[in-house]
This record gives sequence, C-alpha cells and structure tokens, in this order.
Amino acid sequence: MRAVVFAEPGRVALADVPEPGIEAPRDAIVRVLVGAVCGTDLHALHGLPGIEPGTTLGHEFVGEVVATGAALTTLRVGDRVVGSDFTACGRCWWCRRGDHWECAERRFFGFGSVFGAPLPGAQAEFVRVPHADTVLGRLPDGCPPEAAVFVGDNLASGYTAAERGGVAPGDTVAVVGGGAVGQMTSLACQAVGAAAVVLVDLLPERRALAARHGAIAAAPESSRDVVDELTDGRGADVVVDAVGGARPLETACGLVRGRGTVVSVGAHFDATFPYPVARAFAEELSLRFAIGDGIRLRDRLLALVTNGVIDPTVVVTARVGLDAVPAAYQRLAEHQEVKVLIL
Amino acid sequence: MRAVVFAEPGRVALADVPEPGIEAPRDAIVRVLVGAVCGTDLHALHGLPGIEPGTTLGHEFVGEVVATGAALTTLRVGDRVVGSDFTACGRCWWCRRGDHWECAERRFFGFGSVFGAPLPGAQAEFVRVPHADTVLGRLPDGCPPEAAVFVGDNLASGYTAAERGGVAPGDTVAVVGGGAVGQMTSLACQAVGAAAVVLVDLLPERRALAARHGAIAAAPESSRDVVDELTDGRGADVVVDAVGGARPLETACGLVRGRGTVVSVGAHFDATFPYPVARAFAEELSLRFAIGDGIRLRDRLLALVTNGVIDPTVVVTARVGLDAVPAAYQRLAEHQEVKVLIL
Amino acid sequence: MRAVVFAEPGRVALADVPEPGIEAPRDAIVRVLVGAVCGTDLHALHGLPGIEPGTTLGHEFVGEVVATGAALTTLRVGDRVVGSDFTACGRCWWCRRGDHWECAERRFFGFGSVFGAPLPGAQAEFVRVPHADTVLGRLPDGCPPEAAVFVGDNLASGYTAAERGGVAPGDTVAVVGGGAVGQMTSLACQAVGAAAVVLVDLLPERRALAARHGAIAAAPESSRDVVDELTDGRGADVVVDAVGGARPLETACGLVRGRGTVVSVGAHFDATFPYPVARAFAEELSLRFAIGDGIRLRDRLLALVTNGVIDPTVVVTARVGLDAVPAAYQRLAEHQEVKVLIL
Amino acid sequence: MRAVVFAEPGRVALADVPEPGIEAPRDAIVRVLVGAVCGTDLHALHGLPGIEPGTTLGHEFVGEVVATGAALTTLRVGDRVVGSDFTACGRCWWCRRGDHWECAERRFFGFGSVFGAPLPGAQAEFVRVPHADTVLGRLPDGCPPEAAVFVGDNLASGYTAAERGGVAPGDTVAVVGGGAVGQMTSLACQAVGAAAVVLVDLLPERRALAARHGAIAAAPESSRDVVDELTDGRGADVVVDAVGGARPLETACGLVRGRGTVVSVGAHFDATFPYPVARAFAEELSLRFAIGDGIRLRDRLLALVTNGVIDPTVVVTARVGLDAVPAAYQRLAEHQEVKVLIL
Repeated sequence: MRAVVFAEPGRVALADVPEPGIEAPRDAIVRVLVGAVCGTDLHALHGLPGIEPGTTLGHEFVGEVVATGAALTTLRVGDRVVGSDFTACGRCWWCRRGDHWECAERRFFGFGSVFGAPLPGAQAEFVRVPHADTVLGRLPDGCPPEAAVFVGDNLASGYTAAERGGVAPGDTVAVVGGGAVGQMTSLACQAVGAAAVVLVDLLPERRALAARHGAIAAAPESSRDVVDELTDGRGADVVVDAVGGARPLETACGLVRGRGTVVSVGAHFDATFPYPVARAFAEELSLRFAIGDGIRLRDRLLALVTNGVIDPTVVVTARVGLDAVPAAYQRLAEHQEVKVLIL
Repeated sequence: MRAVVFAEPGRVALADVPEPGIEAPRDAIVRVLVGAVCGTDLHALHGLPGIEPGTTLGHEFVGEVVATGAALTTLRVGDRVVGSDFTACGRCWWCRRGDHWECAERRFFGFGSVFGAPLPGAQAEFVRVPHADTVLGRLPDGCPPEAAVFVGDNLASGYTAAERGGVAPGDTVAVVGGGAVGQMTSLACQAVGAAAVVLVDLLPERRALAARHGAIAAAPESSRDVVDELTDGRGADVVVDAVGGARPLETACGLVRGRGTVVSVGAHFDATFPYPVARAFAEELSLRFAIGDGIRLRDRLLALVTNGVIDPTVVVTARVGLDAVPAAYQRLAEHQEVKVLIL
Repeated sequence: MRAVVFAEPGRVALADVPEPGIEAPRDAIVRVLVGAVCGTDLHALHGLPGIEPGTTLGHEFVGEVVATGAALTTLRVGDRVVGSDFTACGRCWWCRRGDHWECAERRFFGFGSVFGAPLPGAQAEFVRVPHADTVLGRLPDGCPPEAAVFVGDNLASGYTAAERGGVAPGDTVAVVGGGAVGQMTSLACQAVGAAAVVLVDLLPERRALAARHGAIAAAPESSRDVVDELTDGRGADVVVDAVGGARPLETACGLVRGRGTVVSVGAHFDATFPYPVARAFAEELSLRFAIGDGIRLRDRLLALVTNGVIDPTVVVTARVGLDAVPAAYQRLAEHQEVKVLIL
Repeated sequence: MRAVVFAEPGRVALADVPEPGIEAPRDAIVRVLVGAVCGTDLHALHGLPGIEPGTTLGHEFVGEVVATGAALTTLRVGDRVVGSDFTACGRCWWCRRGDHWECAERRFFGFGSVFGAPLPGAQAEFVRVPHADTVLGRLPDGCPPEAAVFVGDNLASGYTAAERGGVAPGDTVAVVGGGAVGQMTSLACQAVGAAAVVLVDLLPERRALAARHGAIAAAPESSRDVVDELTDGRGADVVVDAVGGARPLETACGLVRGRGTVVSVGAHFDATFPYPVARAFAEELSLRFAIGDGIRLRDRLLALVTNGVIDPTVVVTARVGLDAVPAAYQRLAEHQEVKVLIL
C-alpha cells in the first residue's frame, strides 16, 4: 500500500510499504479516510534521533475498521472511528486514572522510537491499531470526519491546555502561537468559558485566523499591553505555550499574572530551561506541561465537535491526497499552511 | 421620589415615597439607571405573606453611587455599580465561604419580610444599599449597563444552575422553562461548554427565542425524545428547573440520566414534594436547589458580559419608564413579555 | 461445592451447588478466601422479588484466581484479588466515565435479578467473575485480605458518601446509622479531613464502636444538639444516611445546614419520599443518592487500607466458616453483629 | 514596650520600642499571648536587603484584641484572635478570589520592605494589625492558643502545599525538609487523606519527629528507594519542597512521578533555576509555588486544630519568654530547635 515515509533529514517521500495485518487479539486494522499532517511531524521531517528512514509517518486519522482481533468485543468491521495519536493498554494503574500517556504500552504512531516502541503511522492507506478498544473511538452519528480527526491530537492538546491550566469561566487566557494547536487552544478555551483569549503570533495571517474565530489577536511585541488592557494590568489568568522551545515559553511566562498558570503543550527537547524562580516564588506561579490525551478526552471532544460547539476545521488550509503530502510538509515547514488534511 | 409599590393582591402602583438616606456606615445610596421586573416580582404582585401594601418593589438595578457611608473605602460617589438582589455582610463564616444567602444580614430588596428583614426595593429613583462594599460591584470599563443589570439576579441564577449542576464541557443539559431565568441558564450552560442545551417550554415564542440563541427548543411533550436523540437514550447529564413548583420539577426529574443532577433555581412554596426515591436510589440521582448569588459570581459574570461571551439582553422584550411599570407587571403575568427593563 | 443460598423468606441455608467454570473470554474463577455478610444481604434473607430460592448469596469477596478466560491479559492464576460487588464491562460510555453502576452489563453478585441479570454470589467456595479485568483488582503487597474485602462494597459505600457529599477538610459530617456502612463512612470522612464526624445510632454498642474509632457518637434524640454545639448552631456540612428508608433520611435532612448536602447510601424501595421542598429551596439543600463503586474507587481505597490509613476490620464482630453463615444472618438481623467475615 | 528587633546581620536583640496605637479605622491592637520564631525569620537574622536595623521582627501571633478602629464591626476588645502573617484588604479583586497574597495592601509583619511596605512585627508585647477584620480571626471555643498560632503561617504553608499539589485520598506524598513547615506539610497531607507521606531530611531527629507523627522518614540518599517501594517504582504523586533554594527543589523534582506535581513552599531568591524541561515535557510535570494563606485557609484550619485532627504543637521544641528570643534565634539557626514559641 502507499504510505508517506521519512526519507532523510529534510525529506519525506511516498513509498510502497506492506499492508498491515492483525498481530494481537486487541488489534484493529483501519482504512484511513481522513489523515493529517501535524506540526509535530516537522520534527520528523527535520530528522530526530529514533526516527529511521523508511518510518511510515503520521499519527492523526479517522477511518473505517476493516479487521478486528479476536478479543475485541466493542468494535466491529465497518465502524467509523477516530484514533488517538498514541496507544495505551487501557487496563493499568495509569490508564485507570486516565493518565494514558504514562502507560507502559504507550507507542506513538509514526514517530519511530521517540515516544515508545516504533509503530507505523497513519499517513497511509491502512493503519494497524494496538489495544484498539482503548485507542479507537466510534464517531457519533452526524459527527463530521474532518472535524473528528482533530480529536485524536490537536484538539486534545488544545483542550488539555484549558483543562490543565484550570481555565475557569470569566478568565482571560493568552495563547502563544497560532499554529493548529494554538488555534485549537483558542477555540477550546472559548468553549469552556474564557471571557477573552489573546492569541499571540508573529504572522499576520495566523492572527487574522484567530481573530475570525473569537480570539483577540496580538503581535508578540504588543501582547503584554493587550493582556494588561483586558485585566487591569494584572496579566492573564492562564497562558498557554502552544509552540515549544525556550523562547515561546519565556514569552508565556511574561504574560501571566500572579498566582497564574503557564501551560506548555509544545514539545521541549532542551535539557533545562532557566525558570525565573525568584519571581515564581514571590508570585506563586505554576508551570505545567501537558500532552493531549485523545483517549481520556475523546467522548467529551466528540460531543463538542458533533454538536458544532467547536469547529476545528476552520484551521484547515489544504486538503490533499497521499501523493501530495510530501509537498505539503514543505509548505507547512515554511508556515504556508496551518493545517493540512489528507483525504 | 417615585417608586413602584405593592398595592393589593393583583395590583402594583406608582407611588410617592421618601427618598432614602445613609443609615449605617457601610450604606450607599444609588440612583437607579437601569432597573427590571423579574418573574419573582410576580409572587409579590399576586400577594405573598410578608409583603405589605406600600412595599417598594424591585431587586435588580444598575446605578450610580450618589452617597456613601463613612466606613466605605472601596466605593466612591459617581461609581457605576450593579447590585446583588440581596444583601450580605461579607464578613461572617457564610460570607467568607461565598455562601452569602445564608448570612444573618441577608435582606432581599423589595420583597417585604419573605427573605429577611424588609428592605425597600429598586423599582424607584433611588435605593439604599446596606453593606454596600459587598452588595455592589463596580462595572468594568465598557460593560453595558443593560447587560450588567442581569448580573445581580437572573444571570446569577442561570449561571448558578450550571455551577451547581456541575455542567462540564461536552454535557447535554435540559432546561425546563423559557422565561428570563431559563434563557439565562441556556446561555450560561452554553458559555461553560455544554455540547447541547435543550430548552423546554410550552410557548412557541419562548422556544423560538431560545433557538435563536443556541439552544435546541422542545415542547414538553417531545422533550424526552429530543434529549434521548442527543444522548443515545441516556437522558440529560444535568436538568435545570427554571420555573419552580411541583410540575416543572417533575418534568425535570423525567429528563435526567442515571447519576445525573437536577438543579432547581425556581421558587418552591409547597411544604413537600413527592420525590421518586426508589428511582433516585437505583440511579444515584442528585437534586439540588440553588439561588443565584450576584455577589460570589459577580466578577466572573461581569467579565463574561463585558467581553460579550454572554449577552443577556437578548431576552429583553420591553424597556419602559417607571410609570409604565405597573402595566408591564400585567403583561409579564400574562406571558406577553420575557424581560422588562426600567430605564 | 458448598454455598449459602436463599431458602425461603426468613431463611438461608448451606447447599451443594455446581462449581462454576469459565463461560466467556473475560471470565475468571476465584477461590474465595474471605467473604462477608452484608446488611444488604438481609433484604435477601427477608425475601425480595427477584431473588429465587436456591440463589447463591453474597457479593463481597477476596480470593485467588484459579482460572482465567482467553481474553484476560492482566490477571493470572494465583493472583490475589478483591471483587467489586457488581460487574461492569469497563468499555462503554458509562464505564469510561467511572459510572460503572449504569453499565448495561451490570449484574450484582448473589442478588437474583434485582439489579440486573442474575449472577451467583460469593458466599461459596468459588465464584465466577465476568469482565474480570474490570471487576477484580489485585491486592497490593502487604494488603491484608480481611481489610481488602471491604473495598468491594462497604468501604466503597462509605467513601462514596464522602466523595458525593463533597466532604472537604475541616467539615463537620453527621452519619445516620452505625452499621458497617455507617462505620465505614465515619472512617472515610475522617480519612479525607473531616474536622468532626457525629455518628448517630440508637444502639449504645454501635455508638461506642464509632467513638472508639474517632467519631463523636450521639443518640438520635440528642444528635441535633451535638451537631449544633460543633457548628455554632449551623448544622452539619454533610449528612450521610447510611441506613436507607424514610425515617433515617428524614433524620438526615434534620441535621444538615443551609447549602449543605444529604447523601444517602442506604437502599430505598418506597416509590416516593416527601422531600421538604420549601425548606430545600430557601436553604439551597442538595440531596444525593450514591451506591459504592468498588471499581472506580478501588486503587485509592486499596492504597488507604494497605497503608493503614483506614482499618475497616474494626467493625468485624465475627469470623465464621461457610457452615456457620446461616446462623450469622440471624444474628446480623437481630443487630447482634456489625460485620461478619467468612473465612 | 519590649520587642525583638533586627540589630545587625547575625544578631537580633531585645529593645524598647513605642507601643502601637490605632492609625486607621480598620486597625486593631493585639496584646500578643503566643508568638513564635519561624524559619523565615532566619533570613532576617542573616540580613536581607529591605530589613533595616531596629525592625521589630515576628509574624506569628495569637493574642487578645485591646483596641479597635472605628470601622471594625466584627471584632471586639477582649476577642482572642490569630493573625495571618501578612495583611490584605479583603475587598479587592484578588481578595475576593482568596488570593490575598497579591493584594496591593499586602504587608508582611516584621519583615521590613521585602514583601510590601514595612509593618512592625509580633515578637513584641503588642502588635498593630491593619485591615483587622480580614487579617485576624477569632479562635473558636476550645481552640488551644498554642495550636492556633500555627494557623497564621506554618500550618497554612503546609496545608497550602497539599491543596496546591492537589493531594487526593490515597496519594503518596514526599516532603523534602523536616523543619516546622515540612512537618506541618506531613500532618496536613495525612489529614486530607494521603495514603503515605515520606519525609526526607538529613537530620535523624527531624526524621524521628516525622516518624512519630505518621510519616515514613527517609534520608535523602535513600528517599527515592523508599518512594519507589511505596509506588511500584512510579514516584510520588506529589512532592513538596519545604525548604527553598535550588538543592531541595532539585531533590523534589527527582522524587515525582510522571504527571505528578512538585510544590515549593520554600523561599527562593535565585533569579533562575535550571528546570529539566525535556523531562518535564515528556512526563507532563507540574511545578507550583505557593505561599501559605492564613486568611483564606483560616476557618478550615481552625476547625482541624480545634477538633484535634491536626496537632501542630508536636513540633514545638522550646517555649521561651521575649527576653530569651535572641538566644532562640541562634539555636534555631543551628538546627537545635524545630519550633520555638514565645509565651
């Protein structure tokens, strides 16, 4: 079957790879109907230790179940499902708490051995899904597949930011970064009652996108002023770093009020970050990292997108076939796209 | 000054009453800029033990501070403020918890001795406000007075229903009653992330109003079907009785799912209600009563209305002067109005 | 094998019944090491529609896994486990939320068809456990089996009362009923930070038991005074009915403060209860029913009993063999025992 | 009157200072009955920019009101009260949320200008208390003054650690540091339902003290092993740094499980701390700073100490008169005392 694979640093390619089959009793095979390219995939594009050439990429998918292992009782061939971007056993101490990311069986689709044992990705015609009764969720009637595909990753990340930041109705939230995750964060925070969301990005088109969908957009240099104007100079109640790396996190720390919370849902690969501890002590700050959990949050997010409370598809800037995915990676890397769906 | 007073069961009237003055160090005198007639006022219109003829009615107001007692340090003459519909000391065990309704100093404006010692109401040119640094809140810049007036009562009730019901993002909520409080409940539940709000009312125009503002409207006879359709037959996660009395509460109990919560923000004057206890046990139901608290919820609600997340003025069907208020009571009693503001 | 069965209203008996075997891939067979007789079993003793003669009784057990179905990957023969008193699939919408009691696969051990399809009980040498990877939990190292047996029912009920009542550190809690569930409620509320627990019972020996283990004991007639003394006359923050039926619930309602919560973890079979609705409205009361969930709460309760924070065995008044169980039912019915373990 | 003042770096002294009087309508004058020396005071002893020679030290006190300003209605001469260690207005946006530390009127008793405008301390015969109806709380009947004095600072810090860490019943908590605040944290976490508290300290006598009062004591070098043994190798759910500075915080970070929370209630004066951000991202850690709030937490803590659920006096190693306080500072600095009360 056709699949998008990591070729070499800077290049992904279309390849012919073996079709997956059931390997374990809780496996399901899913024909991918809607896939996507994620900002996280750009780490793979640029090359990351643990991602070998030939790795099938991609971790976002909605599809149709075409085969099921013997132990699956809650999924049937023909079911329309959305996948979480990572697997979990659904049975252990961590999974019972809803902390699936810590499960010993966690594997991240299409990301080599970076976050657990390798598992071929979903930018392909078919994908094998371990622990499928945990990792997959059935789409409710009327749930648009293009919206549902966000539930497995980007929207889960955005919602997790709101959850982990403790966004409460009436709060002012700032979001650093207007890529897909930042935009999802803006939508999620609005959905749960933020009085105002300030989205901060360098790029005017990303600010415009956010502003069209309920946020107040600000360039980095004016962001503190915008937040101060909204909060009598206090700072934002919750600030979300939706980019990752030191600079955005630093920007986020600069926008938060005393006793406020900075949540980072971006990826961090530096060993340490010089956290302003004297200020954090004197102002009782919180810094929390969070990875979206499309298993724990699935039912709730599917309800929100099925009923149209959140429409994540507003960030889609391109819909392409599998063969056009390599080119889409490049455009995404150059910030020419916000979100690319694969149909 | 002119004021609306209770005349006799079935009749309120415009009267000339003495202008209030400072009586205690924490008193403020407020010139009323926006008042309102509330569904609760109809209990007064119909006559209720404890409301004497001559009682100045009304408990919703936005106004301007024109005089302050000696102990007030946080309010100044000229401040634009919204009042809570009842008073509380702000210092006692109850107030420190945010349970202002239980404060021994609680008095309800314009409602005789029904809920504490009598206190003249706000359907008047001026109103005296005890414990004013607790009972009044300053309007944020840009906050529309007509929206703010809802913060002291109707919107506080609607929001309290969401809070007390534990409405969580993704929930399906049913609201019984499409008067002002029911409509506020619908808006508040949407604001905090309900996936769907089903508003149930007999009157087509109230259903239409709700539907224009994000709810799914249903007549009582089809309400369970509508809820079942949205919830795979489970019932609503949270159901709000926004009317009061036995019948609406019964309807509410009929819409809730197992382990769900019924919240009543309507008034109840019957001694007992035959609660379906065998079912409540077997399905682990919760039944909670709640009275809006425009003190505890004020900052959060003002943030939501100032930023336009909730626009409570969508329920306003008439704006009248003080002299037209008696007629407005009648129209409200006949369900010809949803909400009447007094300008 | 030997088992305790319902014989006729008023009589249970020891009987010889077929040994159970695996019937479904997620079944496990457990050799019972510690069983128990529960207050709930007395409803069976007295006869309840749905419980046929010959029904194997009992729903509390700790044991050793002796056989496992093909789909079980997290349990092994030889594992020491505690069972929940009811089954749930662990996969559906309800189970994913932790609301296992509402699962369509719910069956209550040893209780005929009262709460789902019949399932032979655990007052026997062996018990078959459906959905065993959900219904059973492994005992942590060092966890005493006699303490663990409470996790599946009585302690889960007591803890659920604390949870559902929202008991917060510093609260004053009243518990109506000093049977095993009432005593567990007292221990659970103390464990989560209640400042004071008042346990109300008619029987001096049950009051003495509670008093030995941290509660303040009160006879019904003086209970309100005791609560008032502790709360400046306000009433208890949370009151738990740990008996069931109208009278204890009424007593509970009489002890709660304004804005407080009454939780009932007792069984109710009357169609309706005359709930004091005018007072409930004016004082914003909550009434919540709750059934212990030994699945959702298991990990947390096992941690508490393994570390000795809660020692549920303090209520054990007799330890008997299977053949002495019929006599123990009688003594329990006559309030001569608080809790009987079967070894 | 006599008071303990900062003399020069390394030396505090007894001095004669003017008796305070009412300066503002919400002031109260309190005759100190029980004072204390706090680990925080050692920063003053060692010299800290902002603390001038002659500064009256001390921020913990229980006493009797001897004079009240004109605007105080809830306090009377003769009331027995406990003070918070810092002041707050009780009226502003921050105070209304319970975030008193951020109040613009915040002043820390006896600490110069380090945390707000200077305010003479309570290691003296009398202390002036601004905003006294917010800053002081009346002792409940039966509340021992020596226990109550902890409510204003050390116990508030320990409890805040539990609160901010989200300690839930059944959790395993590690506490780094066995001084007064660490011991309070241990007691508070146990009170709210921790299954196990591991207290880590270099000094055997501090470990022994913790062990006598319910904690599992560990030396730093074996602390991770002890935590692993309790948690199947996962790490602690919540870790509290009760010391401050880089090393203890580092130790704390080394004990926390994935998705766990480190709370620091110690003081930090370094500009930055090298936070392990790659790990924090991959394991979704939280880092939260917290300062005890003896205003927000007062009612709850007074209930817990009055009812004997927490007995903070177990850490008292000396009770001295005012003239012996300078010597006590030295012994405390040399770790020869855990907590010194001033009677």
